[in-house]
Amino acid sequence: MKLHFLGTGAGVPSKPRNVSSLMLKLLDESNEMWMFDCGEATQQQILRTTLKPRKVSKIFITHLHGDHVYGLPGFLSSRSFQGGDEKLTIYGPKGIKNYIETSLKITGTTLGYPLEIIELDKKGVAFENKQYRVTYDTLVHAVPTYGFRIEESDHPGELLVDKAHEAGVPNGPLLGRLKNRETITLEDGTVLDGNDFIGEDKPGRRVTILGDTRYCTQAVNLAQDVDVLVHEATFEAGEEKMARNYYHSTAAQAAQLAHKAHVKQLYLNHISARYVGNKAKQLQKDARLIFKSTDIVYDFDEFEIE
Amino acid sequence: MKLHFLGTGAGVPSKPRNVSSLMLKLLDESNEMWMFDCGEATQQQILRTTLKPRKVSKIFITHLHGDHVYGLPGFLSSRSFQGGDEKLTIYGPKGIKNYIETSLKITGTTLGYPLEIIELDKKGVAFENKQYRVTYDTLVHAVPTYGFRIEESDHPGELLVDKAHEAGVPNGPLLGRLKNRETITLEDGTVLDGNDFIGEDKPGRRVTILGDTRYCTQAVNLAQDVDVLVHEATFEAGEEKMARNYYHSTAAQAAQLAHKAHVKQLYLNHISARYVGNKAKQLQKDARLIFKSTDIVYDFDEFEIE
Repeated sequence: MKLHFLGTGAGVPSKPRNVSSLMLKLLDESNEMWMFDCGEATQQQILRTTLKPRKVSKIFITHLHGDHVYGLPGFLSSRSFQGGDEKLTIYGPKGIKNYIETSLKITGTTLGYPLEIIELDKKGVAFENKQYRVTYDTLVHAVPTYGFRIEESDHPGELLVDKAHEAGVPNGPLLGRLKNRETITLEDGTVLDGNDFIGEDKPGRRVTILGDTRYCTQAVNLAQDVDVLVHEATFEAGEEKMARNYYHSTAAQAAQLAHKAHVKQLYLNHISARYVGNKAKQLQKDARLIFKSTDIVYDFDEFEIE
Repeated sequence: MKLHFLGTGAGVPSKPRNVSSLMLKLLDESNEMWMFDCGEATQQQILRTTLKPRKVSKIFITHLHGDHVYGLPGFLSSRSFQGGDEKLTIYGPKGIKNYIETSLKITGTTLGYPLEIIELDKKGVAFENKQYRVTYDTLVHAVPTYGFRIEESDHPGELLVDKAHEAGVPNGPLLGRLKNRETITLEDGTVLDGNDFIGEDKPGRRVTILGDTRYCTQAVNLAQDVDVLVHEATFEAGEEKMARNYYHSTAAQAAQLAHKAHVKQLYLNHISARYVGNKAKQLQKDARLIFKSTDIVYDFDEFEIE
């Protein structure tokens, strides 16, 4: 499970930072990728990576501001042109269906794969299967905006081979039955319960990706105890009033939220073009004073989620 | 008058060629620029130039395929964000208004300048003032597609100073009256007609920019005797059947058209990602066998129109 940032800027593209998009790579887990937001030129950013558009099975849209969606029609048609034929599902606010369908229809674009567009409610479960669960809630921005929490199912505990050997279990089929939590009987008559030979479940990873927002309770709840929180930092510490007026957050507010929600790692994105070089690093310093495990991210940064 | 190519690829962006857009720079003539087509990431291409979006006063859209229009909403909102406050007029096929208005409305985008959107008929005059005249006609493509012919008014002839001196006109106000085509009387009683002392008008420049098309009579008419013709070359010589099936042209067909219409210079754009390096140069060779003054263009190429 990896995060690959494609666009980390705010509002308008700048030379170093494109508008919003990031990819959650689940290639080792389920051979797919999920995109979060798709600002203009996301497909051009992808050309500078090894990412394959056909591997994108889901796109989650946090909100309908142009810098988060104007790359959708182009991405969707190029995915088709490049031979993607597997279903793609898009989750986003009310209006996303009209935007996509109008754009594709007026441009005479037909897609070579099934496209499902799901408009979300105020809060709930966007998607759930055996392996993942994606919940969402509404944040506080100038337009309806979501935060998403992605939870991976726990990994079942593994067979404690050494413990089994110590109990006299020989290599072979008995070990396999023990692994299936069956009760087995050894040659000397000893009865062993498989459940006693399986280690603890390893908790699945948890990631929260928020759209643009003021500091709010919903965001804290969405981020509770996650491994990774991706949070906007449109303003610097001290500009809280400005951030509030524009329905955004400062880097310090993002750090406060990470601290309060006990997250493990905070990544700051949605960085204004005003912050370059050392000024961008200052956002990181602002945040680290409050929450140490903070990194400001740049276009094409890639992080493993442990 | 200069042409500045921003995107010279076909269909989908590739690393070396973005999707369609080009700028006609009229900075010395009327301190404005006209854009022709606006594929996705045109605003990102502009970031790599010194072009100022606020100087763009008109956008002409040849047709509504995504690779020619998906950059419009982003360009329009960034032009506003960057302080553009002067009117912008967009000319394009029926449907362009719905596309732009839906995109701006759903994303909650308001523009800080007046935007006029003019949907064109089958053929006619898109725009005319004292300095320029833009006519258009319908080409032959899978969707309604236009070609545009831009004609600059002739530059009035200049005063023939040497001839006036020879005729005995002294430096001073009499020269000025002669320049205004007035009839003057010299001190010795000689009467001179200003019209005899003005050189010939210098013809204005003529440029034809075509959208995607099969070879057709309308294209020949639009390009008749122009200084510069911009023509697509989606296929190479020999692929005429394929070109016809996909409503495109080969490089050789573009050259035939340039030859037949007696243009001075042909620029080939809309180059498929299949043609890179020497294969792209081959398109140019194909065309030059038929029409010598041909150049294949690349993103960011800039040409003076003499």
